[in-house]
Amino acid sequence: MSTKKIVPRSVSGFRDYLPSDAIPRQKILDTVRGVFELFGFEPLETPGVEKEEILTGGDPDFKKEIFRISTRGEKEKDIALRFDLTVPLARVVAQYRNEIKRPFKRYQVGPVWRGERPQFGRYREFIQCDADIVGSSSMMADAEIIAVIYESMTALGLKNFQIRINNRKILNGLPEYIGFSADAAENVLRSIDKLGKQGWTAVSSELAASKKENGANLTKKQIEKLKSFLEIKDKNQIKVLEKVLNTSCDLPIVNEGVEELKQVIENLRALGVPSDKWVIDLSVARGLGYYTGPVFECVIENLEEVGSIFGGGRYDGLVKRFSSVSVPATGVSLGIDRLFSAMEKLGFLSKQKTISRVIVLNFERSCESYCAEIATLLRKSGISTEVYMGSEKTLRGQLAYAVRNEIPVVLIAGGGEKKKKSAQVKNMKTREQKEIKVGEIAKFIQNILEN
Amino acid sequence: MSTKKIVPRSVSGFRDYLPSDAIPRQKILDTVRGVFELFGFEPLETPGVEKEEILTGGDPDFKKEIFRISTRGEKEKDIALRFDLTVPLARVVAQYRNEIKRPFKRYQVGPVWRGERPQFGRYREFIQCDADIVGSSSMMADAEIIAVIYESMTALGLKNFQIRINNRKILNGLPEYIGFSADAAENVLRSIDKLGKQGWTAVSSELAASKKENGANLTKKQIEKLKSFLEIKDKNQIKVLEKVLNTSCDLPIVNEGVEELKQVIENLRALGVPSDKWVIDLSVARGLGYYTGPVFECVIENLEEVGSIFGGGRYDGLVKRFSSVSVPATGVSLGIDRLFSAMEKLGFLSKQKTISRVIVLNFERSCESYCAEIATLLRKSGISTEVYMGSEKTLRGQLAYAVRNEIPVVLIAGGGEKKKKSAQVKNMKTREQKEIKVGEIAKFIQNILEN
Repeated sequence: MSTKKIVPRSVSGFRDYLPSDAIPRQKILDTVRGVFELFGFEPLETPGVEKEEILTGGDPDFKKEIFRISTRGEKEKDIALRFDLTVPLARVVAQYRNEIKRPFKRYQVGPVWRGERPQFGRYREFIQCDADIVGSSSMMADAEIIAVIYESMTALGLKNFQIRINNRKILNGLPEYIGFSADAAENVLRSIDKLGKQGWTAVSSELAASKKENGANLTKKQIEKLKSFLEIKDKNQIKVLEKVLNTSCDLPIVNEGVEELKQVIENLRALGVPSDKWVIDLSVARGLGYYTGPVFECVIENLEEVGSIFGGGRYDGLVKRFSSVSVPATGVSLGIDRLFSAMEKLGFLSKQKTISRVIVLNFERSCESYCAEIATLLRKSGISTEVYMGSEKTLRGQLAYAVRNEIPVVLIAGGGEKKKKSAQVKNMKTREQKEIKVGEIAKFIQNILEN
Repeated sequence: MSTKKIVPRSVSGFRDYLPSDAIPRQKILDTVRGVFELFGFEPLETPGVEKEEILTGGDPDFKKEIFRISTRGEKEKDIALRFDLTVPLARVVAQYRNEIKRPFKRYQVGPVWRGERPQFGRYREFIQCDADIVGSSSMMADAEIIAVIYESMTALGLKNFQIRINNRKILNGLPEYIGFSADAAENVLRSIDKLGKQGWTAVSSELAASKKENGANLTKKQIEKLKSFLEIKDKNQIKVLEKVLNTSCDLPIVNEGVEELKQVIENLRALGVPSDKWVIDLSVARGLGYYTGPVFECVIENLEEVGSIFGGGRYDGLVKRFSSVSVPATGVSLGIDRLFSAMEKLGFLSKQKTISRVIVLNFERSCESYCAEIATLLRKSGISTEVYMGSEKTLRGQLAYAVRNEIPVVLIAGGGEKKKKSAQVKNMKTREQKEIKVGEIAKFIQNILEN
């Protein structure tokens, strides 16, 4: 090992989460996982590394965004880090088609990587948390995914959120309705996607720009027509859909999309998703190329700058990339970092500096075993407990450690207490201290912690 | 997107875990995490990607084993995938030295990667689950780590396991005691490490081999002396330590190691670790170069071929790689894959095909909403429930799905039941079926599931 000091730093674009952040993140993930499991979603684990062709689907443009990996010894040019959890799911469904039940409701939590240049607020590795239903073309599946979003947000204590629902099939009617060529559709959708963050002025000029400039080359009139279509609104969401039908002159694809959303709406009611928590929003496009049906996203009101917390939709074509059989699928992805920063801004994070609820001070060598025995007793009662084992040797120094780390209960057990088989229990909130017999300590502390 | 089909396959050396494996794996991880938290360990999250110099510590030999990553656009030659969670922890402790409390008890669960050639039974990506105490030189810390191993194994329902404890300081006395040069020590330790799997015959010939052959060049007599030292045993573990002292002629480093283990033993008793669950085993070396004090590993009896399930030890020098301050540390790593395969071999895995405990069949379009309402009700009571949404349209086909996936309770709610606000509840184990009013279904099913 070299003796030259190495500067301790993380790679640009990659983050560490210290305990004060990792503790609430863990709780969020556990809560969301709990909701997924209530709906019967099952865990799946796939590796971070995939064949490059699996990830890109043969599309050379994708390669810009992925991290390729290699060993010094052999060159393995064709493997890379996954950029989402959806493509690996499609691979798994095709690869294990005889082992996996259908419908397959799976969730997965894990890191994904984007090989972008590091830039402010954009990370190159982040945790995704996905729930998908593969093998069902029923609109009940899409409704359940939306119900999962609703139940997750509610279980996290969030109230002021809105789930925006649209159907790609409605947007797929736009070329014919507005009158632009099908190959401009991708650019139109990408521009629409920016509406929430950038507004109509910016988006209009993108739409008007030439194709060379990555625009859609729309005329002013076309943009006006598009704008009034995307802004169709009504308090009654079924009426929104009826207005869509009236406006778009009964195009079959739009009809199909509207019919699907009507079924989704019916199922949302049955699944107990309150009608004030979702809305039909025709401007929701969801950037990804693979969506084919209902799409949805969840935003927190008055926190639009954070972006969508959950986003997803139906992608009936993705499994076909790997299989001769087409398998319908729908699902959602939670952006845990966005959710975390939203909850932080709203003051909804119960930040907690330590896991330990109790610390047993430890300043007399002859009492160390006694301290460990008490800690063991508390742990057996399910109370997270640590015995002080740092370099502070004084009562005062160790108390300061407990205060600094906001540990709610401090135990002091010196020679006197050891003889009496007791300990001093200090409630750090009320500053009250009481000597308690060992056999009664767990119960006494549980009472303190519950109040 | 290309229309050419891409063969769906994972990369050689990388594994998928389908739900029947992922469900028990998840439970194992949750159980172990629960034990970590009882001891006051806190979660930490670090990225999978680190600077190469952080990982290798400037040691060029390390590079053989790591995966380097790059984007197509820019070449970032100096970043790579972590191969363990310990080196990133040392980096974090040095990088955030003013923000992190000491002692710092942290746990981390996450994937690590080894850039080895794929070979049978060796994976290039696997989940590690580590608990470490940084900033304490107290032997209470080492004893707690051993107690965490004991409590984890016990919480998982395992009984026939043994924790083997040694001290690197005792082994560091070997060059002087046996009489070989210090630079042969690494090869000697590496050979000793193989004893459990390969036995003395194989290890002896390695020890006798020349240094050119990566051996230690020991004479037959030296090997005999080494063997009888490493095999020192006694029913009373304190006596083992006394025999060590008598044998090794009072070398100061050995004395220190013995003294430390005596303290560990005293603390183990206080922490409630039964004396039949651990043993002093002088042949435990733990390969890694960075260990400096007590080392330990946990094996399952009669399953030696699986290798050690937990392994760890004290590494007081690692943080120094990144910092002018030396920070003592000790910790353990759980090999979840080894644990999983051991539990599988022992029949200790409660394999479960699905998360859903209840399925609501769904074969009448007009009753679909009613089915969803019942499912919502059950979910509110905390029962994992799915509504059938596959392609089977008949009662018989959907029942077969429930049987195949071992879902314990089936609900049937057609037009008749809908009218009466009830459902047929079928206990799949007893095959009993009963019509129950909607308001009473959750309780009725909870009773079935508890029996």
